[in-house]
Amino acid sequence: MTDQTIYFSEEKSEEAVIARMDSARVDPRLHQVMASLVKHLHAFIKDVEPTNEEWMQGIKFLAETGQMCNDWRQEFILLSDTLGVSMLVETVNNRKPSGATEATVLGPFYVEGAPHLEHGANISLDGKGEPMVVRGRVTDVEGRPIAGALLDVWQANEDGFYDVQQKGVQPDMNLRGVFATNTDGRYWFRSAKPNDYPIPDDGPVGTLLKALKRHPYRPAHVHFIVSAKGFAPITTHIFTPDSPHLDSDAVFGVKESLIGDFVRNENASDASRYGFNQPFWEVECDFVLSRS
Amino acid sequence: MTDQTIYFSEEKSEEAVIARMDSARVDPRLHQVMASLVKHLHAFIKDVEPTNEEWMQGIKFLAETGQMCNDWRQEFILLSDTLGVSMLVETVNNRKPSGATEATVLGPFYVEGAPHLEHGANISLDGKGEPMVVRGRVTDVEGRPIAGALLDVWQANEDGFYDVQQKGVQPDMNLRGVFATNTDGRYWFRSAKPNDYPIPDDGPVGTLLKALKRHPYRPAHVHFIVSAKGFAPITTHIFTPDSPHLDSDAVFGVKESLIGDFVRNENASDASRYGFNQPFWEVECDFVLSRS
Repeated sequence: MTDQTIYFSEEKSEEAVIARMDSARVDPRLHQVMASLVKHLHAFIKDVEPTNEEWMQGIKFLAETGQMCNDWRQEFILLSDTLGVSMLVETVNNRKPSGATEATVLGPFYVEGAPHLEHGANISLDGKGEPMVVRGRVTDVEGRPIAGALLDVWQANEDGFYDVQQKGVQPDMNLRGVFATNTDGRYWFRSAKPNDYPIPDDGPVGTLLKALKRHPYRPAHVHFIVSAKGFAPITTHIFTPDSPHLDSDAVFGVKESLIGDFVRNENASDASRYGFNQPFWEVECDFVLSRS
Repeated sequence: MTDQTIYFSEEKSEEAVIARMDSARVDPRLHQVMASLVKHLHAFIKDVEPTNEEWMQGIKFLAETGQMCNDWRQEFILLSDTLGVSMLVETVNNRKPSGATEATVLGPFYVEGAPHLEHGANISLDGKGEPMVVRGRVTDVEGRPIAGALLDVWQANEDGFYDVQQKGVQPDMNLRGVFATNTDGRYWFRSAKPNDYPIPDDGPVGTLLKALKRHPYRPAHVHFIVSAKGFAPITTHIFTPDSPHLDSDAVFGVKESLIGDFVRNENASDASRYGFNQPFWEVECDFVLSRS
């Protein structure tokens, strides 16, 4: 025991815990992260002063959340998503110059290796839902077109499920594709209008959402990763403006700038020109990349 | 979408998440706890700005910690213990008037139903270790003796294990007993001097401790729960002053006032009077209870 010993006390609880790390030998970044974690965690405890029973409830919730995780279900990501942490991490890692397209969460349903397709291809392989034409331009922040930019696109089907959630039910690579921009920076493809869907809510996170009187829905959206040589890639969504959950996305992915202008086209000859036999939707999705 | 919608932004991330709870319908205490959690959690993220890889490392650590939990191992309690959270919760729930004995963590090895024993009984049933005599008084904060106070006592054996960790190896109820004070508030019993022992360190928490260059040891101690009618019960330890881990308890349980004055007695006739055939230790453990 030395004179410098900091014993635990309510007043100096953070100091006592942080001092225990050997700052000369611990990885500096780990030291920084753990010191900050201890500081904020103790501030939380001092703020709410949990009873022993409340503390034990918290312990049990965390243990159950871990036990819900397996190869195809990551309940702690859901917890991070629903507490706005995932979106915050995405945001602090993607501060963009004014004018560049805003980022949002990647989500758990991205799959590498989607097929590279020609302009105009229809990625809706199950033929469900209302037809949709997506077109737009990729430019730099000065408005100059970026040729050969890649748009990696994915979305859920009319029933609110991604292909990977319904193996054997949906065709493989349903509603997925990679498109390259032409010399004008333009692209277009056909698909089906996406619908709202709930995040998995049969675990501890679902129970928490119910207790907080929150629903588990995400507003309808199409995912994009847009990349081009010399530019910072952007992971983002386009949201439909008519979703009832636009102002209450369970994972806080909505940014105002990402709400698209979806226009319903009831002109039969336009529909026929796109190979549709019913009214369809048109949306312009432009993306602005900043240099890397 | 209403005018009051708060979309997610780096600046207003906490507000956006907290506003999602329906404050009119959510249990007020749950609302308070979750709002504070979101506030402190987002402040932590903004402070350290984790990369996506670091965030994923955190997610995996939490999932593995949950998956380590079973009926006899609670890894999240270990995490809470080693980050000083358990001790902080104990402390904010046991603010005592000046003069009353300080509290410390209960730990995972308390067992209800230890045998009620006569003064002088030896709770060391395996006969291991150096013999020890523990005696003292239980009083109120004015120094008046409390008769009929109960002292529920437990400790690890010489090898650093509690009986419940070594079923079939140690006798049942080894190093456990309940003693009542006499009309002077006094009690005494015989036992074996406790040793330092490591908390279980073969899981994610052990891995974290290693990365933080922290050892997993607790300094040697005897546990007490002292209770009496009309007084607030106290859960506490007495620590031996010669432990090399006294200033680095892995779970931050040490308070200066809880370090006992252990005296080694090499007088053979004293030893024989207590039924020992070797030098032994004597310690006075007085407890001061506050009215409930």
